[in-house]
This record gives sequence, C-alpha cells and structure tokens, in this order.
Amino acid sequence: MSRIEPRVLKGFRDYLPEVMIPREAMLEAVARVFRSFGFHPLATPALEYSDILVGKYGDEGDQLLYRFEDNGKRDVSLRYDLTVPLARVMGQHGAQLPRPFRRYQIAPVWRAEKPAHGRFREFMQCDVDVVGEPSLVADFECMQVGVAVLRALGVTRFEMRVNDRRVLDGLMRRLGVADSRQQVEMLRVVDKLPKIGWDAMLAELRTKVELDEAGTQALHTFLHGSLDAVDDRVVDLDVAGPGLESLRTLLGWAAELGIAEHLSVDLSIARGLDYYTSTIYETFLTDLPSLGSVMSGGRYDRLLALFTGEELPAVGISLGVDRLLAGLGELGLLPASAGAPQVFIAVAGAAQVPYALRLAAQLRQAGLVVLQGLGADQKLGKQLKLAARVGARITLVVGDEERLNGTVGLKDMTAGSQVSVSAAEIVAQVRALIPG
Amino acid sequence: MSRIEPRVLKGFRDYLPEVMIPREAMLEAVARVFRSFGFHPLATPALEYSDILVGKYGDEGDQLLYRFEDNGKRDVSLRYDLTVPLARVMGQHGAQLPRPFRRYQIAPVWRAEKPAHGRFREFMQCDVDVVGEPSLVADFECMQVGVAVLRALGVTRFEMRVNDRRVLDGLMRRLGVADSRQQVEMLRVVDKLPKIGWDAMLAELRTKVELDEAGTQALHTFLHGSLDAVDDRVVDLDVAGPGLESLRTLLGWAAELGIAEHLSVDLSIARGLDYYTSTIYETFLTDLPSLGSVMSGGRYDRLLALFTGEELPAVGISLGVDRLLAGLGELGLLPASAGAPQVFIAVAGAAQVPYALRLAAQLRQAGLVVLQGLGADQKLGKQLKLAARVGARITLVVGDEERLNGTVGLKDMTAGSQVSVSAAEIVAQVRALIPG
Repeated sequence: MSRIEPRVLKGFRDYLPEVMIPREAMLEAVARVFRSFGFHPLATPALEYSDILVGKYGDEGDQLLYRFEDNGKRDVSLRYDLTVPLARVMGQHGAQLPRPFRRYQIAPVWRAEKPAHGRFREFMQCDVDVVGEPSLVADFECMQVGVAVLRALGVTRFEMRVNDRRVLDGLMRRLGVADSRQQVEMLRVVDKLPKIGWDAMLAELRTKVELDEAGTQALHTFLHGSLDAVDDRVVDLDVAGPGLESLRTLLGWAAELGIAEHLSVDLSIARGLDYYTSTIYETFLTDLPSLGSVMSGGRYDRLLALFTGEELPAVGISLGVDRLLAGLGELGLLPASAGAPQVFIAVAGAAQVPYALRLAAQLRQAGLVVLQGLGADQKLGKQLKLAARVGARITLVVGDEERLNGTVGLKDMTAGSQVSVSAAEIVAQVRALIPG
Repeated sequence: MSRIEPRVLKGFRDYLPEVMIPREAMLEAVARVFRSFGFHPLATPALEYSDILVGKYGDEGDQLLYRFEDNGKRDVSLRYDLTVPLARVMGQHGAQLPRPFRRYQIAPVWRAEKPAHGRFREFMQCDVDVVGEPSLVADFECMQVGVAVLRALGVTRFEMRVNDRRVLDGLMRRLGVADSRQQVEMLRVVDKLPKIGWDAMLAELRTKVELDEAGTQALHTFLHGSLDAVDDRVVDLDVAGPGLESLRTLLGWAAELGIAEHLSVDLSIARGLDYYTSTIYETFLTDLPSLGSVMSGGRYDRLLALFTGEELPAVGISLGVDRLLAGLGELGLLPASAGAPQVFIAVAGAAQVPYALRLAAQLRQAGLVVLQGLGADQKLGKQLKLAARVGARITLVVGDEERLNGTVGLKDMTAGSQVSVSAAEIVAQVRALIPG
C-alpha cells in the first residue's frame, strides 16, 4: 500500500506530550477546585439531534454547526457548547437530580469557524453551572470558583470584571433602543469595544441602532464610568436598579472575603451571547491584558425553560482552557521538567531483564515514575544517552555483576556521580535523592 | 417558543454524576499508573480526513464510520479508535518524538454499530502504546501496565490470557488456510469462540475456510491445549516457533515478577483486528467471566508504516473503561458515598451570608469539600433536609446569634448531635471528625 499523507484538518490540532502534560495537570487542578465547592461531573454525547442545538446560538452560531445526516438519516450535529446540552439534560433527567444542581463538564466542542491565530474548530470547554437557584449567592459562588481556580494555578494578579445585563437594559431603555433584536445587536457591538476601540464601535452602532449626540454622550459616560456615576440621566433606574444593587452586594461580599482586589465592576462588559439575564463577568490576567478573558460567564434564567418547560434559573462560569494554558506558559507558571521520568533503568543484556523489571516494580510501588530501558540488545551507552535525553533524574545500571551480587549502579544524572548500592536498599537510596 | 423534546441519539448516553464520579476517579487512578511507567499523554482531533481512517478496520469497520462532508466540502470522519490516529501522529510528528515513544490517550471514539445491551455508538477508549521498540520487554511492559491498573483499582482476582499471532499463523499453515483474506476471516471467527461456542464456530469456519476431519481435530487439540501440547503435528513450527518462544519468555518474566497468577497462555485468544503481528492478550475478571475482556491489545509491527513509510514496531494495551467500571460496580469495588460533600453550610437569613462564605473558604483551604447552602431566604429546616439528602457528613449552622458571637453550630449528621464551637476553631473541629 502506498504511504498515506499524514495531516490534520484545518482548525484542528494534535496535542503532543509537551503541551498535554501541563494541560492535564492544569485540568486536574481545576477539577479539584470544582469538587471542593461540591460540583459534580457530567458528560453528554458529542453528537446531538440538530433540533436540540439549532436556534440557541443566533444565526451566526447555526452556520458554524458541524451538522450532517448520519447513517440512519438522522439530522445530527456536533456539540457547539456545554450549556445547551446541560439544558437538555435538565429537561430529560432533571427530576432525578438535586436542586440546586451543581455540575462541571470538561469536554471538547466543535465550531466551523474561520481558523485564525488562536482560534480553532475543536477546542476544550470547562464549565461549572449552578442550576435551580435564583439566589445571588450562586452567582457569587461561580465567581469564587473562578478566583479559586486561578489561585490554585499560581496566578496572583488577575481581575474579574462584573456587570449586570439589567443595568445595560436600563441604559438601552434610556437610549431608546427598545427593539429586542436591536438590543441583542447593540450588546454584541459593545462586547467588541476592547477589540475594535471606541470609534469603530460607535460607527458600527450607528448602522445598527440610532444614536443622537446626547445618546452617544450618555453611552460614553456609562461605559467609562463607575458604579457611582450611574444615575437616572444615564440609565432607566426602574430597569437598572436591581442590577446596580446586585453589583454592590457582590462587591461587598468580595470585600468581606478578602478577594476585593480580584473583583471590580466594569459597565462595558456585555458578553456576546443572547441568553444572559443579569450578572455577567469576564476575567483578565493583569500582566497579560491582550490575552483576553480567560474565564467568563453569568446568569441565564430563561434558557433552560426551552427544554424543561418550567422557569429554571441558572448561573455559570466557563474556563478558556487553552487560552489560560498559553497565559500560564507566558507567565512562567508551568513546571519546566513536566513529564521527565524520575528513574531510568538501563540494562546490559537480556539476562538482566527480570532483575531490572523487579527493581522497576519496587520503585513504582514507592510512587516513583520509572522508565524501563527496553532495548536489552542495545549498547549500554545508547541507553544512557536516552536516559539523559528524556531528563531522568537518576539512572540505575544493571549488568551481570550487579545482578549476581544483588546490587545496582546508581547514577546521579545531576551530579554525574555513580555509586554501587544494594538492591535491597534501592528505594531508600533513590528516595534520599528524590523526596516523595 | 414551544418546548423542545429533550432526548439523545440511539446508542449515545448522558453520564450523570452517580456514574461520572466513580468513572473520573477510576480514570485518574489509571492515568497515574500509566504515568508511573513513563507514558505521556497525547490528544488528537475527533475529526480526521476520511482517507486517514478508511481501510484500516476492514470492510465492516468502514461501514461503521461516522463519515460526512463538512462545510468546506471535505470528506471527514469521526475517529473510530485511537490506534490509527497514533499512527498518523507518528507519520506527521515522529521526528520530534523520542524513541521509544510511550503514549497514553483517553478519549471517546464513535462507531455506528447496531446499539445493543452494553454496546454504544460513542464510548471511551483508554490506550497505552510503546512505539519504535521491537523488544519483547515492551510487550511485557504493556501487560505489566494492565496488571498494575487492575491492582490499583482494587481488583485482585483476574487473568490476562496471552497468545501469539505467529502461533496461530503456524496453525493455519498446518490447516492449509493460506490465503490472507481467509486467514483474517478465520481469526475473526475463532475470536468469537467464547461467545458462540464450538459448534457454531465450526459451522461458520466451514463456510469460510475448508476444514477436513483431521483439520477439525487439530483445531480442537490446539484451541483447548496447553503450550506444551503444541507440536509439529498441530502447527508449522517454522512459522510458530518464535511465537512459542516469546510466550515462554513472557511466562518466565511473570513468574520472576511474582505476577504469574495473573498471566496464562490461552491459544484460543485470536483478537478480531487484522493488524496484530505477534503478542496478543485479553484480560478477564475471575469473578465475572461473562463480562468479557476488560483490557486487551498486542503487537502490531506493520500498521504504522502506512503513515511513516518506514517499519515502525509498536505494541499496546487498551482498557475497556465502561465495561470495567460496570465490573467494579458488580464486585463492590466502587466507593458508596462518592461525591457527598464533607461539610454543608446552612444559613439562617441573608445577613449571615458573608460570615458563612468566610467559613466555607477556610474549610476548602484546608482541603475539605464544602457545599454552601445557597437559599439564604429558605427556611433552615429546608436547608437541613437538603444537607441530609446530599449526604453531608457535617452541617454547620449559622444564625444571627452565631455570627454575633463568632461561633457556629456544628451538627454531626451521623451522630445527630449538635454543639456550638468557636469559628476560630472550626477547621480543627471539623478535621477531628473528618481526618484529612
């Protein structure tokens, strides 16, 4: 058979070990934080009936679905996010789940986007949501989870910026943007402010919603103003009032918990998705503002009713796994030697194999990562080179002499020294160099 | 909008927390074992160009691919297993990977099979492979990984049954089954022996390969015989000899390592896939033989050349995640209270929220799983009921009095007793009841 050209689809990628090792460690640390708040894992199928997904992400989203007919002529689509599948699960299994239901899901999603730098067609999402609880404490809990995740990953300088859709609604009411389609458009454009800048945003807004000079002025005051600067001239307080109160409560709780440095109100945060109803937030690394938001989310109290037939409040936060991983790398917060074995066992000849296997098994039992030199027919020198290449901290050398005497050559790869130690002592000797 | 009927596709399923919690714990334990042998994680896309996958799984496999045209008119397919993507990765990135390359991958695969009891169209695979190493030590290492995985999961009674394709080739040579297509067919039929029984197997064999009475007799002797019963009358030793020697070496190493009880030669193990070239193995739980094999694999020295253009030996083992999970459940090896929070914090009124949040944060800092009662407006009794329902070990009760006195009510949910303790002492008091 002729050779097949090995390649991946545009917008897709392999994760080789150098990326996967810190990524897995990161995701395990994240899951530990989720669990410490009592969140439980959920998994849903990669494929859903298309009618479950279509119409939930706006017209643009529908275009980006991987949608096809399966072998049984069913209209199916690859999952686009983890929120709509959660909504479906609540409709289907809600009766047997506790309320509030705290769940996390870590899984890939697929979007047929135009591939661009840092934008992929398959990417991992990592979501926590609290379903069935209207209390603002749930919103705050999601924000706390975000703060705890970043702290667990060693990030100390970051800021979660919070806003409330009801405050934006009050603004739009005051600006005379009343049509719900126009409102959605306006939020999408405002969401792009950090990317496109004030002038481009205004220009785009003018084609989509009518803004007079006074409106433009009010918008400017609002987006660049503080919570205290928001008054009845800028927003309709009947609409915005509950949102403003919520924001003040969240800030108060953050102060009480000693995490005020990580939380601020930013009235320009809009979030692109339609379904948010009150609290919304995004999170930025102070030292890498250009990275964009690494954790975002908010409250969506109406989406689930599409599947459950009842009002079911929900709030969540989503971690941008690969973006954050890139950020951690830039900040030097990833371990340098991830994946290097602690011990490499080099074997001089096939007769040594069982003896070497026993040593390896003992060391693994003691919790060490042990790489068995496999090439029993290889020259010892070649194995020692491999041990150095893979970054082993210690190499054990087993030849005829060692086997017959019940010893092993212990080579400290950092110091370069080699000593002969008794096989019975090997775990203790290795642990002396590599504390557990 | 009218309610959407929430449902999943046939052959797909949601994993609710009661299944996901032990499943995640199992997969983390499995990954720890993989890493202790120096295996590194790899991830590949869910979608591949169809020509990468087609033709690698036999005609039947091709029919089972989820294959479609994407938005850019590309012929794409969902991944069918993790072995062919590994082969593609070796062709594409092999130059920058170490040799031997030890990788693990834990990821779902998709097959449009007829759904049946315990057979799904989406299921998790969990593979380790050693690429680039012809030594039998690598085969043994994969088997050791299998043994270590089951032991790490608390399984003590299991048996890995090993065979060698070269021995089966020697048998077929002796039986006069020379055509390679016929050989593949014969192995597929023999593979079904435990499922369909001797008579059905013979009947199926007769339609596919010609077997005379002597051949039938030889086959019976072979399949039910031991390693020592295999001689030149049953197999062509020129072909089978190296395989027989390999099997003896593997048994010898198992004895030296003290895992002989878990390893036996079973000449009826055939494995369904075409691409194996020598060692093959399957693993059965002694107390649940009807469950079928929970870990299987073998050596495939020719598959990778399709992508790399060079001979690249490889050997691996694959864990049947959900089958094993079901087995662990039946054997009572899954923790009963998985996912129950250790501490529930009940709050009598909104004024208590910041105080309660601080307590929760302290306890999480100490490594505890803490569920914050969210319904600040709910009656305390309702929260206490929820605490009992979710299985909390301890419930902390915070009311006005506690907050003002800097205390907290500590309710031992097992003993039913409640005491008042100082907030400053709370971590120590909880840890006294729930050791870390």
